[in-house]
Amino acid sequence: MSYLERIRRPADLRQLSPAELDVLAKEVRDFLVTAVARTGGHMGPNLGVVELTIALHRVFDSPRDRVVFDTGHQAYVHKLLTGRQDFGDLRHRGGLSGYPSRAESDHDIVENSHASTALSWADGIAKANQLRGLGDRSVVAVIGDGALTGGMAWEALNNIADGQDRSVVIVVNDNGRSYAPTIGGLARHLDALRTTPHYEKVLDWGKRTLQRSGPPGRMAFEALHGMKKGLKDVIAPQGLFEGLGIKYVGPIDGHDIGEVEMALRRAKAFGGPVIVHAITQKGRGYTPAETDVVDRFHAVGVIHPETGLPVAPSRFGWTSVFAEEIVEIGRRRSDVVALTAAMLAPVGLAPFAEEFPDRVFDVGIAEQHAVTSAAGMAFAGLHPVVALYATFLNRGYDQLLMDVALHRAGVTFVLDRSGLTGDDGASHNGMWDMALLRTVPGLRLAAPRDEPTLRAALRDAVAVEDGPTVVRYPKGAVPDALPAVGRQGSVDVLARHGGVPRVLVVGVGVMAHTAVEVGVALDAQGIGSTVVDPRWVLPVSEDLVSLAGQHDLVVVVEDGLASAGIGSALRDALAAAGADVPVRCHGIPLRFLEHASRAQLVEEFHLRGPDIARETAAAVAALAPERQDPAVRLRPTGR
Amino acid sequence: MSYLERIRRPADLRQLSPAELDVLAKEVRDFLVTAVARTGGHMGPNLGVVELTIALHRVFDSPRDRVVFDTGHQAYVHKLLTGRQDFGDLRHRGGLSGYPSRAESDHDIVENSHASTALSWADGIAKANQLRGLGDRSVVAVIGDGALTGGMAWEALNNIADGQDRSVVIVVNDNGRSYAPTIGGLARHLDALRTTPHYEKVLDWGKRTLQRSGPPGRMAFEALHGMKKGLKDVIAPQGLFEGLGIKYVGPIDGHDIGEVEMALRRAKAFGGPVIVHAITQKGRGYTPAETDVVDRFHAVGVIHPETGLPVAPSRFGWTSVFAEEIVEIGRRRSDVVALTAAMLAPVGLAPFAEEFPDRVFDVGIAEQHAVTSAAGMAFAGLHPVVALYATFLNRGYDQLLMDVALHRAGVTFVLDRSGLTGDDGASHNGMWDMALLRTVPGLRLAAPRDEPTLRAALRDAVAVEDGPTVVRYPKGAVPDALPAVGRQGSVDVLARHGGVPRVLVVGVGVMAHTAVEVGVALDAQGIGSTVVDPRWVLPVSEDLVSLAGQHDLVVVVEDGLASAGIGSALRDALAAAGADVPVRCHGIPLRFLEHASRAQLVEEFHLRGPDIARETAAAVAALAPERQDPAVRLRPTGR
Repeated sequence: MSYLERIRRPADLRQLSPAELDVLAKEVRDFLVTAVARTGGHMGPNLGVVELTIALHRVFDSPRDRVVFDTGHQAYVHKLLTGRQDFGDLRHRGGLSGYPSRAESDHDIVENSHASTALSWADGIAKANQLRGLGDRSVVAVIGDGALTGGMAWEALNNIADGQDRSVVIVVNDNGRSYAPTIGGLARHLDALRTTPHYEKVLDWGKRTLQRSGPPGRMAFEALHGMKKGLKDVIAPQGLFEGLGIKYVGPIDGHDIGEVEMALRRAKAFGGPVIVHAITQKGRGYTPAETDVVDRFHAVGVIHPETGLPVAPSRFGWTSVFAEEIVEIGRRRSDVVALTAAMLAPVGLAPFAEEFPDRVFDVGIAEQHAVTSAAGMAFAGLHPVVALYATFLNRGYDQLLMDVALHRAGVTFVLDRSGLTGDDGASHNGMWDMALLRTVPGLRLAAPRDEPTLRAALRDAVAVEDGPTVVRYPKGAVPDALPAVGRQGSVDVLARHGGVPRVLVVGVGVMAHTAVEVGVALDAQGIGSTVVDPRWVLPVSEDLVSLAGQHDLVVVVEDGLASAGIGSALRDALAAAGADVPVRCHGIPLRFLEHASRAQLVEEFHLRGPDIARETAAAVAALAPERQDPAVRLRPTGR
Repeated sequence: MSYLERIRRPADLRQLSPAELDVLAKEVRDFLVTAVARTGGHMGPNLGVVELTIALHRVFDSPRDRVVFDTGHQAYVHKLLTGRQDFGDLRHRGGLSGYPSRAESDHDIVENSHASTALSWADGIAKANQLRGLGDRSVVAVIGDGALTGGMAWEALNNIADGQDRSVVIVVNDNGRSYAPTIGGLARHLDALRTTPHYEKVLDWGKRTLQRSGPPGRMAFEALHGMKKGLKDVIAPQGLFEGLGIKYVGPIDGHDIGEVEMALRRAKAFGGPVIVHAITQKGRGYTPAETDVVDRFHAVGVIHPETGLPVAPSRFGWTSVFAEEIVEIGRRRSDVVALTAAMLAPVGLAPFAEEFPDRVFDVGIAEQHAVTSAAGMAFAGLHPVVALYATFLNRGYDQLLMDVALHRAGVTFVLDRSGLTGDDGASHNGMWDMALLRTVPGLRLAAPRDEPTLRAALRDAVAVEDGPTVVRYPKGAVPDALPAVGRQGSVDVLARHGGVPRVLVVGVGVMAHTAVEVGVALDAQGIGSTVVDPRWVLPVSEDLVSLAGQHDLVVVVEDGLASAGIGSALRDALAAAGADVPVRCHGIPLRFLEHASRAQLVEEFHLRGPDIARETAAAVAALAPERQDPAVRLRPTGR
C-alpha cells in the first residue's frame, strides 16, 4: 500500500516523517500525471502545489481551520489528501468535480472558479469567526500571483489589513506567470521580492531543474536570473504588502515541505493577517509541462503522459477561426487593437500578438480594467477588441454598461466558450451572456453558426463605431458550414418545409444546426416550417419580428438561459409590436449546472432536434382553434 | 466683472497672477456655495478641489491633454473654468448635468458616476495616444482616496505601472475620508505618507482652519495629529505606490495653487506614470460642511447657504424605514450583520452601527468584496445584510451569481435608490436591478410598496437561509400605506373593479400606487379589473401566473426596464405554463436617461395612471374576437 493510499484524512499526514512526506509527494505527482492524462483537467497548477498542499494540511486543522482555494483548479492535491482518491471519472458526470465541491467534502468551501475571490471569502469567514467567538480558528486563502492582479483581491487585502486581530493567512502561490507570463507592476514587485538573499536558495533548485532539462531550460534560467539582477536595485522589496499593513513572510521554496511548514506555523502563530510568499513551479516534476512556455498545459485535454501531447487533437475550433480573422482585420485596420485578461493564447490572440506586438494588451486577470480601458482607447481613436471567455464577462458588466455603452464607444467583445461548456462545472458555463447583454442599451450581439458567419460577424462588428458589439461562440469544434437558402431582410433562411409554413424555427448561433434538424423532423410529421438564423440577435430585428408574425408558432433554440434570453427578447418584441404569436423557448434552465459533458446536458435539457420537434408538434396540435386553420394566420390582429 | 466671469476657457487662467488666482478661488467658492445651495448637488467635493482644478487647467492643455475626473461629482469647478457658468438649472432638465457631459463640452470625457474608473480610462487613452503617435499629450486622472479602495483602481494601477514610457498623471485627491471616513490598509498607508516632514507644512493650514472653528475642530485636529504620530514609525512611507513602480510626488497642500502647479509640472515633465498626492479638505471654506462629521454634505438637497440646513427636509423616507427596521431585526437576531460599500449613512446603517458597532462592516468603495465577503460570513454562520444603492449592485453581479447564489448563501441585499432617481443622471438610475437579478438562479426579490410591506419584506428576507434575497425600494418619501383588500395566495389584491374583471393590473413596488390609479380609471370607462401587488416579484409566483390566466389582459407597471424586467418575466412564465394571455409592460425604456426630475421622466415614459389606463383601454378594445367576450375567457386553452 502506498503512502498516498494510507492518507484518508489530513490528520494522517501528521504521522509521516520528512522522508516519508517526500515519497508521498512523489506518489501524488505520479498519480496526477497518470490520472489527469487520462481524464483531462488542470495538470500544471496541481503539480505546482503538491508540497504546499501537504504542508497546509499538516499545519492547519481543516475543516476546523478553513482553507480556501482561489479559482479551485489547484485543489486536486487537496482532494487526494481529504479522502477523495478515485479520479477515474474526474470532471465527468457522477465523478469528482474539477473544482472544490461542498457536496463532496466538508473540507471544500468555494466552488466558484472565477479568480481573485478567495481573499474576500477568507475575510468574511474570519470576521464571522471572530464575532461568534471562534477567533482562534485560522482562515487560510491560497491564491496565485496572477489572481492578485484582479481588483477583488485588492479590495480584500485592503479590508483584511484592517483586521489586525484576525488570523488570516494568505498563501501567495507564486509561479511567476499565472495563466500566462504575469505582467504589470505587481508582477515586478513580486520579482523584486524574490531578489532577497533568501531567494538564492530557492533559485538553486530552479537552476538544477531547468539546466537539467536541456537548452530551453537553460535559456529560461538565464533570463530569469538576468531579470532578477536587473530589478534588484530598482524596487524596494516588501514595500507593497507591508505598506498596506499586512505582515510578509518569504519568499520560501514552495517545494520544500519543511520550509513551507515553518513559514505557515509562524504565520498561524502571528494571529493577524500574514502573507506567505511561496515560490512554486507550475507543472513541477513533469517535463513537458515545465518547459512549455505558452502554458498550453494549464488545462489539458486527454494527453499522453510521457510526451504531454494531446491524444486526440481537437478539430479546427471556433477560437482558431477568430485567431485567423482578427489577424486579417488587423492587417487592414491599423486602429484595431486587442485586449485580453490573462488569456492571450486561450482566446486565440497569440497570432495577433505575434504580428502586432504593440497592439495587444494583456491586462492581467482584470476584466473590469479590460473593458473600461477599452472605452478609453475607443475615445482616443482606436477600435479595441476585448476577447474573453463568456463567463468572465460577468465581471465587467457594470463597465460595459456604464463606460462602453453609455459613452457609445466602438468596442467589440469576443466571447469564447459561450453556452454550455460542461465538464468545467457550474461557473464556467457561458450561459448568462445573452440574458445580461439584453439589458445594455445600444448593444448589438451576433451569434454566428459556422465559420463563414463568424468571419462575417467579426468584420461587421469592428465596423461599428457608435456602440458596443459582441460576437459569441461556443467551445470546441466548428460544425460544417450551413449555407443559407435565402434571406428575409437581415435574417438568413436556412430551410423551408411544406407549402404553408406554420412554424418559425429560430436557431441562435450554433443551435442553428439543431434548428435545421427540427425543421426536418417537423416536415416528416407534415408540419411546414421556416428555419432561420438571425445572426445578429440583439437587438431583436424588425425583420425577425415581421417573419414571426407570418407564422402560427415560433420556436427559439438557444444555448443560453431559456427564461431570459433571445427567445424571451423576441417574445417581448412581438408583444411590443402587437403581434400575438406564441413563442416557445428551448434553452438552458435557470439553475446552476453540475459538471457533465455538453452532450449529456444537451440531452438533459431536451435540446436535441428530435426532442424539440416532438414538443413543437404537440404545441402545434394544441394551438387555439383560430390558429388551427392556416388561412386565419394572415388575418390582421387588429392591434 | 469678476475674475470668474472673465474665464471663458482654461487658457484664460494663464493670464492671472498668483494674487489674482487666490481671488478667483474665493469667487469660485462663493459661487458654488450660493449656486449649489439653490439647486442641490455635490457641494463638499467641489469646495475641496477649487485650487486643484485651477492648477490642473493652468498646467495641462485640455482638451489636447486629457483630464478625467473619477465619479465626476467634483467637476463643477472644471465646468466653471471651461465655459459653463450658468448653474441656474444644474441637474434639472435642460440645465447643466451634475457630472461631466460630452454633450456640454469637449473638455468632458467620462460621464459615468460610478467610482474608481478614471485610472482605467486614463490607461486606455494613454495607450491609444502612444500608438497613434500622440504620446506627447498628457493624460491626467483625478481620483479620490476613497475611490482607490475600489478594485478597478488596483487593476488600473497595475497596468499603468507597466507603461513607464506613457505620461499618466494620477492626482490623488486625498480628503482622508471619501464618502465617509476611509478605512482599510490603504487609508493607513495614505496616513503614513502624510507623516513625512513635508506634511508638517500641510498640517499648518489644517491646524489654523480647524482650531479657528471651535472645540469640535480642535478635537479633530488633536485626533489627526495623534494618529499621525502613532503611525509614523509603524509603516514605511511611499512603499505601496513605489513598490508597484509608480513614481510618487507628495504630499502637497491641495489648497496651495502654486504648490499644486509645481508638483503637476514635475509630474508632466517626468513623462511616465506619476502619483501626485494632494491633501485637500472636503467642503473647504464653507464652515457647515467642514465641521460635519457624518458627511451629510457630500450631496445636498436645497440648503440654506448660511446654516447648511435643508430648506425643505424630505418626508419620512424609505431609507429611514430600513434604518429603523434593521435595528429591530438586529436586536432579535445576533447573527445579523450589515455591510456597506462606503455608504454607511446614505443607505441608513448609521443607527445600526451605533447600536451594534461590531456588527457593521464598511468595506470601502468595493462592492465586489462586500458581496463575496458576505458569502463567506454566511458560510460561517452569520446572516449578512448588504445595503447598496441599486445602481452599484451592477458592480457585484458576478459575485452575487457565483459566490452567493451558487453557494446558496443566506445573504440579504437591500437596494436603495432603485428605479428612477432622475436628477443624478444616467448612471445613478437603479433601473437595471430586476432585469439583472432575474438571471440569478434561486434568488428571491421583494419590491415593497409602502412602509408596512417594506418592514415585512425585510423580516421575511433575513429569515431565508438557503439563497440570496433582495429588497429594493426607490429614492425619496414613502407614500401612504396602501392596504390590501384581499389576498390570492401570496399576492396582495389592492382593488377589484367591475363584475367581470377583464384586466389584471400588476403594480411592482412603489408602482402599485399607479396600478391602483389605473384600476380606477379603467373602471370609469366600464372596464373591470383586478389590481394586485405580488410583493415578491422574483421568481414569478405560481399564484400570479394563475391569476393572470383568469384575465383577458395583463398590465404590468414597474420602475425598471420595460423590455426585460418583471413584466417580461411574467410573460415568459405564462408562456411556459401554456397560458395564452397577452401581457403589456409599462416601465423604463432601454436607453440611457438624461438628468431630469423623476416626475418629468414618469411623464415622458407614460407611466402615470391615466396614460396607462388609456393605453390599456385601447388594448382591451383591440383584443382578438374570442377575447372580446368575457365568457370565452374561462375556456381552457387546450395546452
